[in-house]
Amino acid sequence: MLAFYGLMVALISRGHFMALLVQKFGGTSVGSAERIAAVADRIIRARAKGHRLVVVVSAMSGETNRLVQLAQQINPSAGGRDYDMVIATGEQVTVGLLALALQHRGCKAQALLGWQVPIETDQAFGKARIQNIASENIHRLLDEDQVVIVAGFQGVTEVGEVTTLGRGGSDTTAVAIAAAIKADECQIFTDVDGVYTTDPRVVERARKLSKITFEEMLEMASLGSKVLQIRSVEFAGKYNVPLRVLSSFDEGPGTLITLDNEESTMEQPLISGIAFSRDEAKITVQGVPDVPGAAYQILGPIGAANIEVDMIVQNVGMNKTTDFTFTIQRGDYKKAMKVLESSLVNMSGVQLKGTEDICKVSLVGVGMRSHAGIASQMFKVLADEVINIQMISTSEIKISIVINEKYLELAVRALHTAFGLDAPQDLSEIAETPSA
Amino acid sequence: MLAFYGLMVALISRGHFMALLVQKFGGTSVGSAERIAAVADRIIRARAKGHRLVVVVSAMSGETNRLVQLAQQINPSAGGRDYDMVIATGEQVTVGLLALALQHRGCKAQALLGWQVPIETDQAFGKARIQNIASENIHRLLDEDQVVIVAGFQGVTEVGEVTTLGRGGSDTTAVAIAAAIKADECQIFTDVDGVYTTDPRVVERARKLSKITFEEMLEMASLGSKVLQIRSVEFAGKYNVPLRVLSSFDEGPGTLITLDNEESTMEQPLISGIAFSRDEAKITVQGVPDVPGAAYQILGPIGAANIEVDMIVQNVGMNKTTDFTFTIQRGDYKKAMKVLESSLVNMSGVQLKGTEDICKVSLVGVGMRSHAGIASQMFKVLADEVINIQMISTSEIKISIVINEKYLELAVRALHTAFGLDAPQDLSEIAETPSA
Repeated sequence: MLAFYGLMVALISRGHFMALLVQKFGGTSVGSAERIAAVADRIIRARAKGHRLVVVVSAMSGETNRLVQLAQQINPSAGGRDYDMVIATGEQVTVGLLALALQHRGCKAQALLGWQVPIETDQAFGKARIQNIASENIHRLLDEDQVVIVAGFQGVTEVGEVTTLGRGGSDTTAVAIAAAIKADECQIFTDVDGVYTTDPRVVERARKLSKITFEEMLEMASLGSKVLQIRSVEFAGKYNVPLRVLSSFDEGPGTLITLDNEESTMEQPLISGIAFSRDEAKITVQGVPDVPGAAYQILGPIGAANIEVDMIVQNVGMNKTTDFTFTIQRGDYKKAMKVLESSLVNMSGVQLKGTEDICKVSLVGVGMRSHAGIASQMFKVLADEVINIQMISTSEIKISIVINEKYLELAVRALHTAFGLDAPQDLSEIAETPSA
Repeated sequence: MLAFYGLMVALISRGHFMALLVQKFGGTSVGSAERIAAVADRIIRARAKGHRLVVVVSAMSGETNRLVQLAQQINPSAGGRDYDMVIATGEQVTVGLLALALQHRGCKAQALLGWQVPIETDQAFGKARIQNIASENIHRLLDEDQVVIVAGFQGVTEVGEVTTLGRGGSDTTAVAIAAAIKADECQIFTDVDGVYTTDPRVVERARKLSKITFEEMLEMASLGSKVLQIRSVEFAGKYNVPLRVLSSFDEGPGTLITLDNEESTMEQPLISGIAFSRDEAKITVQGVPDVPGAAYQILGPIGAANIEVDMIVQNVGMNKTTDFTFTIQRGDYKKAMKVLESSLVNMSGVQLKGTEDICKVSLVGVGMRSHAGIASQMFKVLADEVINIQMISTSEIKISIVINEKYLELAVRALHTAFGLDAPQDLSEIAETPSA
């Protein structure tokens, strides 16, 4: 089965297999009439290979922001049903235009809005979750030899209200449709040509991965590699939809994201990539009474204020008190400090400390499951660069550390080299100028 | 019954009657965030008087043109289902924004798209006709004390495709909804403050009519007084929906358009207004054999080429031949001449003549039904001004003439004065400078 699947994937990419594909094009890819024409041409090339296609598109780049600003100008606290109705028009325009572009080229195409598929969601306007996709309409159109173009980012409630899935929701739409129609592959076209071992803007010799597992991709995505919406990767993993990231502008196989199966583990390098995030702040509550309920007393009000907590570290207590440290997004820092100042007023003896000049760096790789010593190797690399580690947090396929933000580039480059991720280079090593 | 109705209308306009009103705001009225805010304020004032409201809005001015251009850039022959899907987004944005503006002011409001009402239409994309409006959703929301905001210009087919009603279709949406929910009045807010006896840009002393019949309004509208979409007036007449034209920017009762009933006829002046159109061209086929089928032989190919024919005049034939003259929109002139040149090639002895420098002027008034001599009075006025009449066509409530375009202003002003339509004026008559 797996061997067959591997063969099929190879055949799809070589164009020898007539597959059912979902292709998703983001806002930059459909940002102008010329770009939409280019997407239409690409779709026609895929059709010429015999593939059957469902295409999901986002709003033209800038359009959603324009609509958001218009709505907020009219109602600063704009949200809910009528707000979603306004915002959803961006995708409605692009699906119609792409269908017209294909028809102009003699290719049968039909656009479908969220409610026409239908893509049923809950009523959480602005961040609705998909509950069901009826695939009959799509299959009927595919059987008519149409290219089916589905509006990303939008759905419909049980009672016929338009919803949006939240920013980046078009990726989720594409994966959900791929799952519903049992597509052979879901291809996400972006402005990058695949998933890299780390951000090429930080490490020149970052290498494109030809393959990565869903789990690794989740860790990479949630840590700031903004190639794919994390929800879409979760969805793909849950329904085992082979997901491929590739470039809208170049040809090339991109990066395939698949199940962590035996086959891929065997090929798997120890570490797949290094993710990082600057958008971090750290808060420490010192002298917390070492009693049940203390953690909840601290984080309860933070959660109630809609502040998302990332890493949490609590050491063994001494003298019946302990230090409790957690990280949050930097934008929430001031709000969180204010919440704690008032919520901890009754917890005697505690002290509040915080800093915004931190960053998080993570090694990610399913390979580390079966290899001991990765953490100590990581710490050694950082020690050699005299970088102090402020927090450590580990999961089965990830080790994250918090360090001073000024060491971010240095740490990422050193780890990238030490874990053998650097791309082969013709230029002499001298060409690479280290910068601290 | 009629007396009661007259009383009710008076009470609505004075705000003493809690009415069910449909209010329609066009593109200029919702052309910016500020304008949408002003519309919201106006709605709230109407609500404060106790009225229940359904509000129909158009796309923000310029938006539909922007979408049309985008679509045509992508597909020069853009049309059909996917084109309508693109164009319909203009209204989707404004209904959502207006609902948000009302909510911001503490007023309960909900936006509904064509498919959500639903407004069922046929499948004639781009110029769909309304077939049915289910009023349950609107009534349910009104019962919840909501202001219901309905997207104009759009509908949905039986199989769930988005349609548009064609340019100006929002007026039709408003009237159709007023008919469906049995509204007490349908109020069309425009950038003029009512219907005038003629175009005030041509006749300074044009007078605003407080009342006009559906029939008269139809003649006025179809002849170039672009206050209301002709379809919406037909619809209002058919379902007897009292229709009121009033200004978005000023307060004031505007012009009420109602049934031609005894009451109104009694009050009716002889002539209600003078309509005119410059957008005319005239074609004459000379020497047409005076045999059955000749007219069809001429106009058949014209109709097949989608050219609309307006006035048709054929005189009694002499020497077994006759002259056949008709008018068309000026933009169709060249196309029509080309069609005839090839279609009449087998009709021996005929000669084709045409001119684009004509205009049409019409007297309109239900009062002329019961008064003889209007036509001859009209011709005398024109003769006194030495204006040659090229064609004449009459209906029960209208007399239209075709004259050289250069006499348009002169003819309209002379007729306006002669039929007693001039507004009272404080200034001496000397202030009015005649211009030929």
